[in-house]
Amino acid sequence: MAIHSIWEKFPELQQELLETQKIMNQEVTIRNKEISRALQSFFANGGKLLRPAFFLLFTKFGEVPSNKRKYQYAAAIEILHAATLVHDDIIDEAPIRRNMETIQSLYGKDIAVYTGDFLFTVYFQLVTQATRDYKVLDFNAKNMRHILIGELDQMHLRHNPEITVKEYLRHVKGKTAQLFQLSCAEGARFAGCSKMTQLRAYRIGHDIGMAFQILDDILDFTADEDVLQKPVLEDIQNGNYTLPLILAMKNNRQAFDILRTKQDLSEEDVKEILENIKRYNGITEAQSMAKRYTDSALKEISKLPNIPAKTVLQEMTQQLLQRDY
Amino acid sequence: MAIHSIWEKFPELQQELLETQKIMNQEVTIRNKEISRALQSFFANGGKLLRPAFFLLFTKFGEVPSNKRKYQYAAAIEILHAATLVHDDIIDEAPIRRNMETIQSLYGKDIAVYTGDFLFTVYFQLVTQATRDYKVLDFNAKNMRHILIGELDQMHLRHNPEITVKEYLRHVKGKTAQLFQLSCAEGARFAGCSKMTQLRAYRIGHDIGMAFQILDDILDFTADEDVLQKPVLEDIQNGNYTLPLILAMKNNRQAFDILRTKQDLSEEDVKEILENIKRYNGITEAQSMAKRYTDSALKEISKLPNIPAKTVLQEMTQQLLQRDY
Repeated sequence: MAIHSIWEKFPELQQELLETQKIMNQEVTIRNKEISRALQSFFANGGKLLRPAFFLLFTKFGEVPSNKRKYQYAAAIEILHAATLVHDDIIDEAPIRRNMETIQSLYGKDIAVYTGDFLFTVYFQLVTQATRDYKVLDFNAKNMRHILIGELDQMHLRHNPEITVKEYLRHVKGKTAQLFQLSCAEGARFAGCSKMTQLRAYRIGHDIGMAFQILDDILDFTADEDVLQKPVLEDIQNGNYTLPLILAMKNNRQAFDILRTKQDLSEEDVKEILENIKRYNGITEAQSMAKRYTDSALKEISKLPNIPAKTVLQEMTQQLLQRDY
Repeated sequence: MAIHSIWEKFPELQQELLETQKIMNQEVTIRNKEISRALQSFFANGGKLLRPAFFLLFTKFGEVPSNKRKYQYAAAIEILHAATLVHDDIIDEAPIRRNMETIQSLYGKDIAVYTGDFLFTVYFQLVTQATRDYKVLDFNAKNMRHILIGELDQMHLRHNPEITVKEYLRHVKGKTAQLFQLSCAEGARFAGCSKMTQLRAYRIGHDIGMAFQILDDILDFTADEDVLQKPVLEDIQNGNYTLPLILAMKNNRQAFDILRTKQDLSEEDVKEILENIKRYNGITEAQSMAKRYTDSALKEISKLPNIPAKTVLQEMTQQLLQRDY
């Protein structure tokens, strides 16, 4: 088993994430050896395990009913994330993720659809076993329903140059913040924290999720300034417009007329769009929005009780949301 | 709203299925109007609602805690079935189902993946609300896990002329019988029936599911003797070998050597295979296997308490499993 190097600084959490990974591996050990192995390698290969890490950190603000069930819940959350990735890879026909061939590219679309469905089921079963409370299950199902309704809304946002900042933020909320806020709030609830701490955890998760996704979308444009990044090229060609582009369009509508007039964008067209995004402050304004969410998360974290987990939470959040790689 | 004509003979059940359909429609009413409408038309267009019908019939052998929750559970079961159909249509790239364009063909692969995932979530949420019991949820999740592990096993059975009757039956058990037996047994459990009746319901569901799928596989070969059915042609070309072929191969291995030696089968090749299936008793032997399961189901039904639902169950089972259309 292996775990991402970002956790080396936090040995206690690192150990807990190894326990979480152990349950994940057990749960996907099935008759079909190829799928078992493919999923286990996928889990071992550099997933950052951020969502279970936030869940585990928030359990420290209270008392968990059982360590085994705590790890089951943490594993469930990462498995839900994995399920969405496997299905996303079908949609994008992505050949590679985490330096590995995707399930879709290894075994075909049918196996990838069923593998994602299988992981969704494992998620529900683990949450059931961990929480033993139908109200919590109802809350989890409601949360997942929001995520998927959000994805279905995407249908209207693609190839839509009139997409607003509000629509973008709603999509990010469904796609990313929803699972971060579930992870944090459920950690606090599972450990029997006060309603106030649960609500705070929920807000922190929301803000971290929003900042995380906005930052990810910015990094697509800035990661390597000399080379046109393939994801950006494809995103724009596929009509997926993210915050830097939306903000730049707001500042200068005409500069992006090509999105309204031309069907198939060439590499040259996309290069020009990228330059205009920078010229009309798309990147810098997106960065300030990400910073507002990060500051808001850090402010809420500062109000949590003073226990060692609070410091870890602060360092993690800073490391995660102020990266430029 | 509309409901399949097979229920006209059973007006009480017909009314209950309309209530079930009402909940299904409410649950898929979401912001995205196109998806709402597509799913509602899909529900209205000729789905036979067999699984909720069996669930509802078995609740009559006891006392349900609430009618609303009964219909929620019945709706959940049909929605789970719909989720698997939406995902199956992605895999098969099917343009048409129930005389309607599929979600995949109307809105593309991404929307079809998320729509299926959304329906899975609705299923879990409805079961949660209907049963309010984490043990039942654990049972439901386990059941669904078996279904998906079964689908993943298919990977090794496709294009495999050495597939055994046992392997075929195991796949049918996972693919079809699992959900029928859940429907029947959960109907009995939900209504607080004795363990004996629950076990009987489980066996009846299993046998009906097995017979139903075998019959479906036979009808692919016999529905219209003059025309080569497209599904059969594609099934054999795609390497999906069903019971009539497997049994005929057992009787005369050499007659099907072409499956071991040739990669791409022409229409002529498939026609010859079909003739050999009939010549070597594939159809008749598959029919006797289906009959054994039907007889076993009817025998178990005969042991149920004498209430009106029992007669309905007998008539439905006979109508369903002795059809030749």
